[in-house]
Amino acid sequence: MLEYQAPQQDLEFLLFDLFRVQEVWADMPQFADLTDDLVRAVLEEGGKLAGQVMAPLNQSGDQEGCEWQAGQVRTPQGFKEAFAELAGGGWLGLSGNPDYSGQGMPKLLGCLLEEMFWAANSSLYLYGTLTVGAAICIEAHASEAQKGLYLPRLYSGEWTGAMALTEAHAGSDLGIMRSRAELREDGSYAITGTKIFITSGEHDLAENIVHLVLARLPDAPAGSRGISLFIVPKFIPDEAGNPGVRNSFASGSIEHKMGINGSATSVMNYDGATGYLLGEENQGLAAMFTMMNYERLSVGLQGLGAGELAYQQAARYAAERVQGRSVSAARNADGPADPLLVHGDIRRMLLTVRALTEAGRAFSMFVGMQLDLAKYAENSAAQALSELLTPVAKAFLTDRGFECAVLAQQVFGGHGFVREWGVEQIVRDVRIAQIYEGTNGIQAMDLVNRKVLRDGGSTLRSLLENIRAEAVPEAFRVGLVAALDRLETVTAELVSRARQDAELPGSAATDYLDLLGYTLYAWLWARMAETAPADEFGDAKRRCAEFYFARILPRTLALEQTVLANSASVMAMDQGAF
Amino acid sequence: MLEYQAPQQDLEFLLFDLFRVQEVWADMPQFADLTDDLVRAVLEEGGKLAGQVMAPLNQSGDQEGCEWQAGQVRTPQGFKEAFAELAGGGWLGLSGNPDYSGQGMPKLLGCLLEEMFWAANSSLYLYGTLTVGAAICIEAHASEAQKGLYLPRLYSGEWTGAMALTEAHAGSDLGIMRSRAELREDGSYAITGTKIFITSGEHDLAENIVHLVLARLPDAPAGSRGISLFIVPKFIPDEAGNPGVRNSFASGSIEHKMGINGSATSVMNYDGATGYLLGEENQGLAAMFTMMNYERLSVGLQGLGAGELAYQQAARYAAERVQGRSVSAARNADGPADPLLVHGDIRRMLLTVRALTEAGRAFSMFVGMQLDLAKYAENSAAQALSELLTPVAKAFLTDRGFECAVLAQQVFGGHGFVREWGVEQIVRDVRIAQIYEGTNGIQAMDLVNRKVLRDGGSTLRSLLENIRAEAVPEAFRVGLVAALDRLETVTAELVSRARQDAELPGSAATDYLDLLGYTLYAWLWARMAETAPADEFGDAKRRCAEFYFARILPRTLALEQTVLANSASVMAMDQGAF
Repeated sequence: MLEYQAPQQDLEFLLFDLFRVQEVWADMPQFADLTDDLVRAVLEEGGKLAGQVMAPLNQSGDQEGCEWQAGQVRTPQGFKEAFAELAGGGWLGLSGNPDYSGQGMPKLLGCLLEEMFWAANSSLYLYGTLTVGAAICIEAHASEAQKGLYLPRLYSGEWTGAMALTEAHAGSDLGIMRSRAELREDGSYAITGTKIFITSGEHDLAENIVHLVLARLPDAPAGSRGISLFIVPKFIPDEAGNPGVRNSFASGSIEHKMGINGSATSVMNYDGATGYLLGEENQGLAAMFTMMNYERLSVGLQGLGAGELAYQQAARYAAERVQGRSVSAARNADGPADPLLVHGDIRRMLLTVRALTEAGRAFSMFVGMQLDLAKYAENSAAQALSELLTPVAKAFLTDRGFECAVLAQQVFGGHGFVREWGVEQIVRDVRIAQIYEGTNGIQAMDLVNRKVLRDGGSTLRSLLENIRAEAVPEAFRVGLVAALDRLETVTAELVSRARQDAELPGSAATDYLDLLGYTLYAWLWARMAETAPADEFGDAKRRCAEFYFARILPRTLALEQTVLANSASVMAMDQGAF
Repeated sequence: MLEYQAPQQDLEFLLFDLFRVQEVWADMPQFADLTDDLVRAVLEEGGKLAGQVMAPLNQSGDQEGCEWQAGQVRTPQGFKEAFAELAGGGWLGLSGNPDYSGQGMPKLLGCLLEEMFWAANSSLYLYGTLTVGAAICIEAHASEAQKGLYLPRLYSGEWTGAMALTEAHAGSDLGIMRSRAELREDGSYAITGTKIFITSGEHDLAENIVHLVLARLPDAPAGSRGISLFIVPKFIPDEAGNPGVRNSFASGSIEHKMGINGSATSVMNYDGATGYLLGEENQGLAAMFTMMNYERLSVGLQGLGAGELAYQQAARYAAERVQGRSVSAARNADGPADPLLVHGDIRRMLLTVRALTEAGRAFSMFVGMQLDLAKYAENSAAQALSELLTPVAKAFLTDRGFECAVLAQQVFGGHGFVREWGVEQIVRDVRIAQIYEGTNGIQAMDLVNRKVLRDGGSTLRSLLENIRAEAVPEAFRVGLVAALDRLETVTAELVSRARQDAELPGSAATDYLDLLGYTLYAWLWARMAETAPADEFGDAKRRCAEFYFARILPRTLALEQTVLANSASVMAMDQGAF
């Protein structure tokens, strides 16, 4: 079984020792009553829900999958009850606006809980994260009346959310979408079109499903400036706010997928469905991006959670399974063989997973903290930093999460390939995180074009300056400074060369994102090594930091070369020769 | 659908231009009548079988899977007929001994056909490759009578093969296996024990299944020196060599796996089954390794074939799918968007797949050629080289094949995750190739400990000397020489440091194998660029070579660092801290 236990000790270390959240929160009056004890209790409760309610349904949900019949979707056994606990516990409204019954907790704390929920059962949590995302979008752009109607019901999970962007012919190119919206006399709109890949578009977990649908008004400009956003509820709320008339849209089918089989992914047909404008006409894409930026961090946390889940399985297996002998000394001299953990190559895999996962956790918290600083302390530098780091969080956390899942699977040998142990499911489930919410290639192009080139690299330079000012353990100083110098040089070169070489940003984007990610992880490892206590937990942190600097950070040497390779190496091949 | 077309033009280029096989074969009288035309015809026929018979069953076989009932296994629809064509066409006996109705073709040619069959349908071809492997083992170690009985029937595919090594508690550690064999009065043995993960152990494609089973004799020494190998046929051949009495073993169940669902993987229970000693008592492991070395190259070809199959799907999709606009110039100005191929990041992925796959093909042929030189020209240097490169072929070709499948899947965006397009199946299917026939970690340890450290790196040094003597295009000279120098230095350091640091070889093994693989691919790309004709095909080769040197070879910079990192970075963590 895929057992999962929330890494409470690491979470507390990161919160209280590494990021000293009490000092951060001291400037934010909203969080004045967030004592350490309360934070610990919230984490413990979340961990119980994840480990005891959600995780036990992870494998059964995969095996059973969802069932579609005549437009209705049945989710796997137990999902309804578990979702009711997730929703009923207030977890979906954790960072929600208190004026509408949200709990108003910092995003930083939300990140930790999201990681747990993703780790425990990514299919089940998808019904939740879409709901959180829809609420964020409504909170930011809707009218007071719309907020009053939808937010409390989304925060409570009585109603869930779905985002309807993708059309079959358009994919990531939203500018060429065709769904249309026509104004009716009563001020509502008739929405018509077909959307694909709609996660949680139809299911049986909630009494209503609130679709946020992108469509074009008749007189809209062409391309991405002519897209509006609409609230399209499955049941149209009556005067009292209860689900009323069934709206005229339905799930046409669900996809059969590589993974996340407990999550229903629908083709949605909107057939003159009643929708309500959310925000301004033709400003739909910008409004949707409010949601997508949070979703992107959330999907990054899916990658992170998968890495943690995979690590827990593989570390346990490697400690229990005996095979072969240590080359230096038998560790289990009375048994027929030593545990897998004596082998250097097994340790290489486990430590890679662990070093990437623990740094990834610190990184995701750092991004969450910037979102809090931007929102609650109106810190514009934090706002810029959160925008710079969001695509990195989405792509780097999911690429590394996939790498970690595959490595953990490898530790199991043949048992990693059979379904019984569940570890192959982690690989299948996390793979989608590299694709949805904008593929990781799109994240990389967003990073390079919009977040680095546009401001000439100045947001990144500020971050690096702050990092350079921090205390670093002697053992890591040289390595960290070299990595920071490398990133800074490569960034300056990229900014400069991109002026002459228009294809360079696109062809270098993914490698540049990786270079940035690995460099920031080096900083976080140095910081963790500096901050870790003088006990067993702290010793393990320092061993991981050593591993990271010796065995993972060197990847940046390759990336330095590939980012600055001429774009001709990628662009010169004739299109017809592929 | 997963369409597959054998890359005939590339195969002919590699055979006739790159490796000049006619010059190689001139020293081997066995191959005197292998004209270019005959070779072309064999490849074309193999390509037709792969593309038109095997490939159309790839997705349906995955979806249907195998069914177990009361010890019987039903393979997916169409497999029986397709296997009959594969077997009936003589493909399983292609490299078989002509004295027993094999076709006596060079392994080099066999590699090309194996790649096709793996690419077209890896589940179906598994029934074939185990048969080829069993025949190789019998040919090398069995008595004349055994050869006469089994080889013609295996070469013709009337009977198929299976290897029964793994036991549940032992995994890769064959020394601790428990299955036992007791001599009977008639000279046969009673075999008792349970084996797991037995590919093709039971199925409905052939009239008999020949198991090669490892077991211990009662008085056998402990550990791996006390293991003997037995031929254990499903139906005991009668005097005329026809399948007679049903032997007392059976499939207890089949595994539910991540992929290769059309291939039945059994738990096999041998209950006093009748077996015949193959080779000498207690020499079973060595005999089995004869088979495993060929199987390892074959499994490498599985990885290679997956890369080619994945490339073909992704390249077609990227040419047809329109999304976004080129940053330099619209390529499809009249359409709503440009094809995916205009984007640098899409090209990065496709070119990575292609550069790794085409170099991998050349590499696998080079290894196949060494096997031929060793066997047919009794060239001892080639024998040493084939032993050095076999673990690299197994691990590097499958690790890169998996990387390629994942990249190709990424090109498809969301469509890569749904089952309909089939590309997610390639990822699931090829994943096993990194695990079975000895995990890739075990291959890496074999490479470092047995093939490099044992002879102080001298076999590798000879290879590198020969490479340095070759003509290289000016554009790649500096890059190649630097890569060769790097590998040579790292190897010398590894050999020297391993004397003091016993844990270094194990902890560095995987990275060292990768360093060797990437360096050899650089050599092969330089050689291909030198040899490629002055036409469109040759231009594409040179573009790929440029891409490889600019964008992939830099990975060796990271590996140089990580191989030589102190083993303490991996070994220092306390076992209890994992």
